[in-house]
Amino acid sequence: MSELCEVGSAQKCFGGVLKQFSHHSEVLHCTMTFSIYFPKQATKESVPVLYYLSDIGCDHLTAAKETGAQRFCTEHGIAMVFPDTGPRNTPMHDEGSNQQLLEGATFVANATHEDWSMHFNMFSYLTEELPALIESSFDVTSAKSIMGHGMGGHGALVCALKRPELYASVSALAPICNPSDVAVGKRVFAQYFGEDDKAAWHQWDPVHLVQGYIGPELPILIDQGSDDLFYKTKQLRPDALVRASATNPLISVVLRVQDGYEHSHFFVQTFMDDHIMLHANTLVPPPDDDDDGDDEDQGDRGEGGSD
Amino acid sequence: MSELCEVGSAQKCFGGVLKQFSHHSEVLHCTMTFSIYFPKQATKESVPVLYYLSDIGCDHLTAAKETGAQRFCTEHGIAMVFPDTGPRNTPMHDEGSNQQLLEGATFVANATHEDWSMHFNMFSYLTEELPALIESSFDVTSAKSIMGHGMGGHGALVCALKRPELYASVSALAPICNPSDVAVGKRVFAQYFGEDDKAAWHQWDPVHLVQGYIGPELPILIDQGSDDLFYKTKQLRPDALVRASATNPLISVVLRVQDGYEHSHFFVQTFMDDHIMLHANTLVPPPDDDDDGDDEDQGDRGEGGSD
Repeated sequence: MSELCEVGSAQKCFGGVLKQFSHHSEVLHCTMTFSIYFPKQATKESVPVLYYLSDIGCDHLTAAKETGAQRFCTEHGIAMVFPDTGPRNTPMHDEGSNQQLLEGATFVANATHEDWSMHFNMFSYLTEELPALIESSFDVTSAKSIMGHGMGGHGALVCALKRPELYASVSALAPICNPSDVAVGKRVFAQYFGEDDKAAWHQWDPVHLVQGYIGPELPILIDQGSDDLFYKTKQLRPDALVRASATNPLISVVLRVQDGYEHSHFFVQTFMDDHIMLHANTLVPPPDDDDDGDDEDQGDRGEGGSD
Repeated sequence: MSELCEVGSAQKCFGGVLKQFSHHSEVLHCTMTFSIYFPKQATKESVPVLYYLSDIGCDHLTAAKETGAQRFCTEHGIAMVFPDTGPRNTPMHDEGSNQQLLEGATFVANATHEDWSMHFNMFSYLTEELPALIESSFDVTSAKSIMGHGMGGHGALVCALKRPELYASVSALAPICNPSDVAVGKRVFAQYFGEDDKAAWHQWDPVHLVQGYIGPELPILIDQGSDDLFYKTKQLRPDALVRASATNPLISVVLRVQDGYEHSHFFVQTFMDDHIMLHANTLVPPPDDDDDGDDEDQGDRGEGGSD
């Protein structure tokens, strides 16, 4: 197990605290950085963990800054992990021709092409290495859920569809649902798996994964903005996921097309409370004792001297 | 009156819409850009306006992205204007020696030194030109309040202390309260007003303004993080403002020192709801008719098809 190094300064937020850590990843063979938000409840008890996978172009802090998630994490007593979107500063990043492909557009998958398989194993990182590190390093429970936005929405779907036993719940905002058949996915998958191995591509494509899914019943909440340019140009294809999942009674997709919203974090922050509440309902057991001594929490976000 | 040019695309957010405009400023002699958030209520009625002045290093979009303000603006039916922090791309910006001084560290004041008086008149811009433009261009009421963070907190205090008749309420987060006596303020004020004209400096210093204030009773809410490095190194000095205001019965400062918070937008987003509620209480008259037909609003942020 690699060692965690706290980077940047911890920042108090909604009564809890946001911290950033870097560590050596054994499956990605590079240094990785993530943020983790501990709600104020974490000072008194173990809390479950919600993983948030960010979209193309983000880093480990972007969503913590721009989605307002921490407000609702403290409301429900959930920790939130914001991983970086992919490996950075690997030897692959030194090859100019791949720059466009690499700039924050790391799909959650385990690459098989020899050029990529050393560093591009975000699926193993997110489903195995990172949770093991989180659970051994902090006072959190093993209960976890996963959500994501855009490229990270694809990642959340892939993680839950391939490892449903790990997650209490899954949801996504404007996810890339059918990467093996859209431009950005084709470009990346051709590199990760080779141009011709479409069977390998389909192992990382939610539209294909839902059709072959065997596991516990899996409800999936998806919010999608109707004015999202990537949606309108059919790069995201939640409708294809809905159609494909209709063939599998184990999967139920609730797709909410939100009128007039586009793809940015303005869309995400608008619906973040719904998603966190959904995950809280599966992650946080209802109170079963008579400990309702919450009065002391009141001052945690509003106290202060008055002069 | 200069013409508005919409820049960027409008973005739906919490049922309302965020838009960005640029225009030629007659008092700053350059192009200025601002964002404005219209809550969903603005489609049905005129709404009052809360001005939010950002801290050093921000632009007209930073606070809209990172403070979560729009959620509460729609909750209370208030429009919010996010001006840029100062003039950009003026001839002054071409002189290398001033770069550090100019990068987003424009204090709200009207400069008198001949090098600066052409472009650095943010006080006139914020209290006169911009509100006139907003009120003539959009369906908003003339009721307005003002708040700000850090350098923008200084600006909010200066605007309200010098033009109290304009604003229904004022508040600030970690404001620079005593610029004529701290490093960043001294550096800027020496340029704006000359090294020796301390009387001019004091006209833009809240600690001095509260002592000479004559006007309606003015309550001021200030939140300040106890772990804010600028606070700990005495660059902000809210305590000096509290002491100075004690000599003037017209001014009442409520200073809430929030334990463990520092200076960033994580601090701001934590307390934004309190500030917007304070301003809403003065800006939004209580309902006095029997129109409670709000059922139609329900779907505005959560509707969508389910497949």
